[in-house]
Amino acid sequence: MEVYFDNSSTTRPFDEVIDEVALGMKEFYGNPSSLHNLGLKSERKLKECREMLAKTINAVESEIYFNSGGSEGNNLVLKGVLKSGSHLITTPFEHASILNTIKKLEESNVKVTYLKINEDGKVDLEHLKESITKETVLVSVMHVNNEIGVVQDLGAISQIIKENSNRAKFHVDAVQSYGKFQIDVKKLNIDFLTVSAHKFHGPKGVGFIYIKKPNTLSPLIEGGSQEFGVRAGTQNIPGIMGMGIAAKIVNALIEENYEKVFEIKKKFIEKLKGIDNIKINSPLNEKFSPYILNVSFRGVRGEVLLHFLEESGIYISTGSACSSKEREKIGGSYVLKSLGLTQDEISGGIRFSFSEENKEEEVDYVIEILSKGLTFLRRIKK
Amino acid sequence: MEVYFDNSSTTRPFDEVIDEVALGMKEFYGNPSSLHNLGLKSERKLKECREMLAKTINAVESEIYFNSGGSEGNNLVLKGVLKSGSHLITTPFEHASILNTIKKLEESNVKVTYLKINEDGKVDLEHLKESITKETVLVSVMHVNNEIGVVQDLGAISQIIKENSNRAKFHVDAVQSYGKFQIDVKKLNIDFLTVSAHKFHGPKGVGFIYIKKPNTLSPLIEGGSQEFGVRAGTQNIPGIMGMGIAAKIVNALIEENYEKVFEIKKKFIEKLKGIDNIKINSPLNEKFSPYILNVSFRGVRGEVLLHFLEESGIYISTGSACSSKEREKIGGSYVLKSLGLTQDEISGGIRFSFSEENKEEEVDYVIEILSKGLTFLRRIKK
Repeated sequence: MEVYFDNSSTTRPFDEVIDEVALGMKEFYGNPSSLHNLGLKSERKLKECREMLAKTINAVESEIYFNSGGSEGNNLVLKGVLKSGSHLITTPFEHASILNTIKKLEESNVKVTYLKINEDGKVDLEHLKESITKETVLVSVMHVNNEIGVVQDLGAISQIIKENSNRAKFHVDAVQSYGKFQIDVKKLNIDFLTVSAHKFHGPKGVGFIYIKKPNTLSPLIEGGSQEFGVRAGTQNIPGIMGMGIAAKIVNALIEENYEKVFEIKKKFIEKLKGIDNIKINSPLNEKFSPYILNVSFRGVRGEVLLHFLEESGIYISTGSACSSKEREKIGGSYVLKSLGLTQDEISGGIRFSFSEENKEEEVDYVIEILSKGLTFLRRIKK
Repeated sequence: MEVYFDNSSTTRPFDEVIDEVALGMKEFYGNPSSLHNLGLKSERKLKECREMLAKTINAVESEIYFNSGGSEGNNLVLKGVLKSGSHLITTPFEHASILNTIKKLEESNVKVTYLKINEDGKVDLEHLKESITKETVLVSVMHVNNEIGVVQDLGAISQIIKENSNRAKFHVDAVQSYGKFQIDVKKLNIDFLTVSAHKFHGPKGVGFIYIKKPNTLSPLIEGGSQEFGVRAGTQNIPGIMGMGIAAKIVNALIEENYEKVFEIKKKFIEKLKGIDNIKINSPLNEKFSPYILNVSFRGVRGEVLLHFLEESGIYISTGSACSSKEREKIGGSYVLKSLGLTQDEISGGIRFSFSEENKEEEVDYVIEILSKGLTFLRRIKK
């Protein structure tokens, strides 16, 4: 049996997506910037995708900008908005493409406040309020954390920003939430929203960013006037078409899929009661995404457990794929670290991440192998 | 009949490329940064593509960095190497992703010298020699110009740089030449080389950059440690696989394809003798790429001729697709402008760009429609 519980790293592209990408490569290969019919045909297709994607977050066509994915989107917002002397507010457990970009920007005299995180993983809203100054130009928050799945209250954050600043923009990294949670950029008063296609069964190497006012940031990639001057480079139409189909499918089933993975997570947590010496870092409640279950197995190194499980065809992860090398250095996830876990709990942390394609039977199998593995690994460690 | 003579804008992906991308999406969807087997399988595939692509330019695997294409590659080199006070040498007819990035960098006190261009479109080598100073950190030159197809003498340029500076790096924008001309980065002493897949029948949204010493530049997209820390973001494996196949096919046939398009260009130029009041901006000799034929039709606006031709299924362009909006503003191509053409010749400029998939019969058809079009358009203009 093969069980893919690593859907936060990346997802299997839908068959419909594969077909659409192939169709794009066959029929829409014209350069959308070309002035002839073939170019126009591609440009019309781009517009169609843009309109469709805009609707999924209650935006309009001209607010959707295509790019190569989440890391590019996050870099664009940070580097495009923050200048020497400006102040950024964020959290200590953002994605590597936020945190490592900040390190670079700090060299150029950008000031950063990392918000306190409550025990349950939520941003401390009082701290947010206190942190906003006249120099604050950006607040950047991950909607759903990629390692523990905690869901931030975007409405509350947005309101605090609005009430305390008429300058600060609000950026949401929605890479782990788009297509899984309803996002209304207008209601939530979001200025920038980053999305990556391969996290919701779309193609790799493509994503989009919602931008309320494009004149508030400078481009990361300059050149041709593609994407209304915000992102140069010939658009990846087949990839964008594939992303469009994937978005259509997942957005039509947000509630159903939520219920499905909720049941999987529920069953998983129930079955984990039979395993001792563990800590569930992402409990089953509305504060956490049902798509992510993070568990610390005390007395075991997460990476060793990962390799034990893969022997039986079970694919999971010890945290963010993008930080896997960094994690080796610091002996575990910086996300778990920021939640105040013990070193044993950090080093034994495992992320199971689900998709609506997973089945409840898979949980039985994983629990069976997991129990065997833990008995074996904990024994040899003694 | 449909004739696609706009291959410098973008090319039709090979069927083998479409199949390979689909295979990549089906079989290699694992995240190469994941620690389990599925990730490893993807990582091995990446390595395989990297090795294969490296060989095509006489580089080694660790010198190939995947990204989203030519504009990103050009931005990475310029923004990654040039700091306040540094000096860049380039030409006035580079791609928009070079020229517009420079405009931005000039705001940060980067100094730029635009080399004089001889009548035949070649860089003035004496001027290059004179321009190199102690502050020169980069010389950036397009191998084959995207509008007129002039081929720069990379060996001569490289030698002058080497003889006059031990600091200046050499960047080659090979977007229009890779897969069409042999490029040996070692022999030519190149430090950075930019390549885009969709220009040689590969997928859109993917490319690579050759970097001799990655510690000589800072990343454009920061985050995870993908691409040896030079470019963050989950790699687009299906796209990279498609690029690999396309590269394999075109590189195996460089000489044959060259001969094929040479014959097409030769026939085209011969047949153009029957049409009066024209100027050929890219003659049939070794100084110009046979893949590009740029002609000024005096007394006609290029864009009007373009739309006349597309009515008969002929797809051509008035210049770079990436600069099409800019061209509208300045009344024609800045590349033709830099060659000292008259306004009439600039505004009547047309680029026919070939691929080995084109057939000689297509030339007969295009000439026939072209003659009709010119007779008609020149008459109504009077």
